Amino acid sequence: MIIDCHGHYTTAPKALQVWRDLQIANLNTPELGPKISDLKISDDEIRETIETNQLARMRARGIDVTIFSPRASFMAHHIGNFNTSATWASICNELCYRVTQLFPESFVGAAMLPQSPGVGINTCLPEMRKCINEYGFVGINLNPDPSGGHWQSPPLGNSYWHSIYEEIVALDIPAMIHVSTSCNDCFHTTGAHYLNADTTAFMQCLTSNLFEQFSSLRFLIPHGGGAVPYHWGRFRGLAMDAAIPDLNEKLLNNIYFDTCVYHQPGIDLLAEVIPVKNILFASETFGAVRGVDPDTGFYFDDTRRYIDGAQSLSEKDRSMIFEGNARKVFPRMNAKISR
Amino acid sequence: MIIDCHGHYTTAPKALQVWRDLQIANLNTPELGPKISDLKISDDEIRETIETNQLARMRARGIDVTIFSPRASFMAHHIGNFNTSATWASICNELCYRVTQLFPESFVGAAMLPQSPGVGINTCLPEMRKCINEYGFVGINLNPDPSGGHWQSPPLGNSYWHSIYEEIVALDIPAMIHVSTSCNDCFHTTGAHYLNADTTAFMQCLTSNLFEQFSSLRFLIPHGGGAVPYHWGRFRGLAMDAAIPDLNEKLLNNIYFDTCVYHQPGIDLLAEVIPVKNILFASETFGAVRGVDPDTGFYFDDTRRYIDGAQSLSEKDRSMIFEGNARKVFPRMNAKISR
Repeated sequence: MIIDCHGHYTTAPKALQVWRDLQIANLNTPELGPKISDLKISDDEIRETIETNQLARMRARGIDVTIFSPRASFMAHHIGNFNTSATWASICNELCYRVTQLFPESFVGAAMLPQSPGVGINTCLPEMRKCINEYGFVGINLNPDPSGGHWQSPPLGNSYWHSIYEEIVALDIPAMIHVSTSCNDCFHTTGAHYLNADTTAFMQCLTSNLFEQFSSLRFLIPHGGGAVPYHWGRFRGLAMDAAIPDLNEKLLNNIYFDTCVYHQPGIDLLAEVIPVKNILFASETFGAVRGVDPDTGFYFDDTRRYIDGAQSLSEKDRSMIFEGNARKVFPRMNAKISR
Repeated sequence: MIIDCHGHYTTAPKALQVWRDLQIANLNTPELGPKISDLKISDDEIRETIETNQLARMRARGIDVTIFSPRASFMAHHIGNFNTSATWASICNELCYRVTQLFPESFVGAAMLPQSPGVGINTCLPEMRKCINEYGFVGINLNPDPSGGHWQSPPLGNSYWHSIYEEIVALDIPAMIHVSTSCNDCFHTTGAHYLNADTTAFMQCLTSNLFEQFSSLRFLIPHGGGAVPYHWGRFRGLAMDAAIPDLNEKLLNNIYFDTCVYHQPGIDLLAEVIPVKNILFASETFGAVRGVDPDTGFYFDDTRRYIDGAQSLSEKDRSMIFEGNARKVFPRMNAKISR
């Protein structure tokens, strides 16, 4: 079985975007709508957007299950206030829930949170509990920078975040650390902000005692860990200089990297420097990069090919990356999908 | 000959730090000093800090020449106003000039600029001209984020930067794109902010027409290009999605990467995906990582070993990385050092 641990509903019916645009247009006059009930999306529309896109691609590539969450760039937690985000998260999560109900063999849910800059993270607990306990989702996406590229929240080691950590530990789910759209002109969303956030989150963990306080907390850092594996020697050295003798012991019982790295040399490096137990298969299809690599004739985001092509991996390694590690990091998966 | 294109005076005599601390303490009362003339550093002190540190390491590793600039993390352009930075840059550049005078065979200068958030970049021209024309420096460090992790300046493609580009093109020098200390708690300076800035700068170039406007402008992106080579497939794909058919053609006539990547697999990847003509040898000794890798028994930042160990490189490739490319990117080097 192959589990893709990083998929977003990037192909949702256009009515969703129309609803969001109206919500944003009326940020200061919410009484003008839209209401949640104004959004009308039929099961057939959902089926079509999934069957012709994600599911078609999964079948072509031999991917069995995708852990599926709302579109990351659309979370845009910087827009409006908590109520704005709460309504928007509720709508987006419910749509993903409907995908998991329509395609229960192929999609398992992960939640976006109704984060809002400057608002206590405990405000996200009700939506998270609903998604895990009622919708059967198996994880969440946690945005370390809900300001959208202005980085105004405390680092992940700060007690600001503790209430959500306590609850995700209690629920036995991991958090994928995933930012959203950048509203800072300096940062291109998918080319800079996403990768920067991955690196930043890793370093925030390295310089805190977070995993001493929450020993069973699990973070999944997407996009192959940003710059981290490429600079693994730098991080090992920085850790040593900070009197942390063993970076693996400090972080790799709690941090995992996905395989959203869109060329063979990148995956080869990831597989060489990061322990196999810390790597989870993912493609983020359809995500940041949608084209075909003219050098290979295959989609850039067809990451299964790179895992298959990584010479340093054994078949047992591949099995861990494709399935076993995801079942450990997302233990609620096991009740959702057949073995 | 081996040229290290990325060295900073990180080992300057303590009087420099004392002077800076006093300058910062009196930011709002500059009449209380310190005066430039209050800083007393003798030639012998400079000799000692260099001979026992950078020069000793260069000799041990067979490095002939280092392009040497003021300590990057100490630039701290976010502190005070333009006058603060102007005085500080002037002092730091003069110290590096003295190093190049005391060790003319081993050190060639590169300038820090007196940048200050919100101030026009043209204010940096006099200090830059002095360093190039009077001190014989061969390059500059340009900080894309003088706010220190708040990213409040326009992106590098914006006309805000044009006056400095016009002058560095006229002077035929490159700019290393190098941020300074982060004063944003989210970003660890050397573990996150530096690498993020490298990735961000690359993406700012990709999404602008900068090199169409300034076809002979040369940027050196340090720290192995941040996350860029590891995600080269992502960047190629993003470029294609943005109707840029050939990323090499768009950027690699103007952008170069250094080799400050502190482990063999990282350098192997860099050498595999980035054309050899775009790679310049560097170690940033003494820089972000100062320890010995217990796995190899050698210093993490002894990057010459990784270049020597990169199997994909020919002897001609190594010669380009060690010397030839630096002479092309920093053409003023050729008048400074014997062939």
